[in-house]
Amino acid sequence: VSPEKTLSELGERALIALIDSVVGEPGVTLGIGDDTAALPTPGEGDLLATTDSLVQDVHFNLAEGSGRRVGEKALAVNLSDIAAMGGTPRWALVSLIAPPETPVAFVRELYLGLVSMARRFGVAIVGGNVSASPATLAVDVTLLGSAPSGQLVTRSGARLGDIIVVTGTLGRAAAERVLAVQGHEPGGTVSVPEPRISVGRSLAAAGLAHAMIDISDGLATDIHHLVEASSAGAVIYAADVPIDIAARKVGRQTSQNPLNFALFGGEDYELLFTMSEAQLPRAIEAAGDIPLAVIGTIVAPEYGVVLQDSGGVRTPLEAGGWEHFRRG
Amino acid sequence: VSPEKTLSELGERALIALIDSVVGEPGVTLGIGDDTAALPTPGEGDLLATTDSLVQDVHFNLAEGSGRRVGEKALAVNLSDIAAMGGTPRWALVSLIAPPETPVAFVRELYLGLVSMARRFGVAIVGGNVSASPATLAVDVTLLGSAPSGQLVTRSGARLGDIIVVTGTLGRAAAERVLAVQGHEPGGTVSVPEPRISVGRSLAAAGLAHAMIDISDGLATDIHHLVEASSAGAVIYAADVPIDIAARKVGRQTSQNPLNFALFGGEDYELLFTMSEAQLPRAIEAAGDIPLAVIGTIVAPEYGVVLQDSGGVRTPLEAGGWEHFRRG
Repeated sequence: VSPEKTLSELGERALIALIDSVVGEPGVTLGIGDDTAALPTPGEGDLLATTDSLVQDVHFNLAEGSGRRVGEKALAVNLSDIAAMGGTPRWALVSLIAPPETPVAFVRELYLGLVSMARRFGVAIVGGNVSASPATLAVDVTLLGSAPSGQLVTRSGARLGDIIVVTGTLGRAAAERVLAVQGHEPGGTVSVPEPRISVGRSLAAAGLAHAMIDISDGLATDIHHLVEASSAGAVIYAADVPIDIAARKVGRQTSQNPLNFALFGGEDYELLFTMSEAQLPRAIEAAGDIPLAVIGTIVAPEYGVVLQDSGGVRTPLEAGGWEHFRRG
Repeated sequence: VSPEKTLSELGERALIALIDSVVGEPGVTLGIGDDTAALPTPGEGDLLATTDSLVQDVHFNLAEGSGRRVGEKALAVNLSDIAAMGGTPRWALVSLIAPPETPVAFVRELYLGLVSMARRFGVAIVGGNVSASPATLAVDVTLLGSAPSGQLVTRSGARLGDIIVVTGTLGRAAAERVLAVQGHEPGGTVSVPEPRISVGRSLAAAGLAHAMIDISDGLATDIHHLVEASSAGAVIYAADVPIDIAARKVGRQTSQNPLNFALFGGEDYELLFTMSEAQLPRAIEAAGDIPLAVIGTIVAPEYGVVLQDSGGVRTPLEAGGWEHFRRG
């Protein structure tokens, strides 16, 4: 590595690869590859641990009224990681760095948002830290959870012939960002996802999900994460991707294909999982009120990840979505 | 709270009180009051969890060669929190936020520092996160540890008549900061503490320490934290405070009383604990190579915290040290 090279020149994927190579073999059930670490505790299943940050002027701004949603979202994105493992969230630690000129009211709202999301999901906020920051406010949440022995779902269990299933609808967060960028509601960029804890838990407890991930970076990127961890390939059927109604509307308004919001937009925080087709009725039952959509099939790794249109034409589906550390 | 009020007007103590009031009763063994949370896990003692951040231009700068020490220190300050509970460190999660223009070499050195400190103390780095940041680099470490049943040491167990004991020497970090401010070695502001894991573990296992805390904010502030949690008071004997040799030297060079570095400087990360005087020989044995100094006595709460000079004159010892969120 040239000493003058910067993170923007390196890019996010290469940065993560660099960190992985420095950190090396963690010697635990799951390491840095999955978003959530699973740590063996004698006698009672796995301890789960995950961490995620929201950063001012990257993920939110200090617009009036955004504090509560920043707090809710800071916990929700971590809850989503626990959901994707089939785990139960338990304890959170909250680390805040904030400039001296930060309004007290914003910080108060942020913690109210954290607490309200924590209560909804039975999480106790058990610790934290505050530190001054010269110019950037950021909140980093570490969430601990648990999973009974043998019920952990990872990214790496997809099997040839599995169907690929997604909860809910995709593309809403991307559509909201498009609207926000157009200046209609600048404070509206903080969309709070609904963590799929209950669905994830039910699928894991019933042993239905072979592999699972939450869609944070966008369907296109996260299906790559899943099949790469599983040494598999995937066909995604374009016509079956459940595009959110808000994404369809914004697509019409802006003359964009709403499928692109669903494939590449990210921040949906729905669950993406693979399972045996024969078990689909049981999964629908396990999901309760949350709709499931079958959007594809797990195939051999040499196929890579392809998008198949309604005419049967297949094109490669590239990972793409949010690339951090790029200016502009 | 007036909506226009800022964190700098509020101050750090009031901010923490505000957060405590919003977060409320955590319902776990120890909450936000102690630096480390203790979480009950069925059958095998307590799970410990603590989090601490280092922030660019508050705790360090990007001076050449500082990356490794930033990484070492980011883990070391968390190790010190686990040490103060008598715990064994196990797993760490590392969250990095960094501007696009950050040199890759700095980040690589930072993780090398984290890994080298982790290996020394048997810690596995099991997860983490990276995010872009507009202007500030910060690293937030969450450290998980464990303590056998009944061996947890908190801040709140000090008893009337206990002696007050401190490991090592105090004032070195403050003296190094004074030198750095004078411009002799600007990169030298990142002093890496030596976490007292082994001493903390031995004192806890032998049941010797009644109350314990690590000295992060300065002896004067941290003895207040301890006695307030214990509903007690303290007399500190000025002549018995173990002033570091570097602090004495810088005191002479700058015509400052080196005792002030030891009392108010902070960042020493030595252990401050209370115990029965009769057990002192056992504690000295448990501490091995690490020197112990008896610096005071636990008294009734109405005495508050006082400093007694060699002539027997007592003056109130105010909490003071690093107050965040104040523009300097």
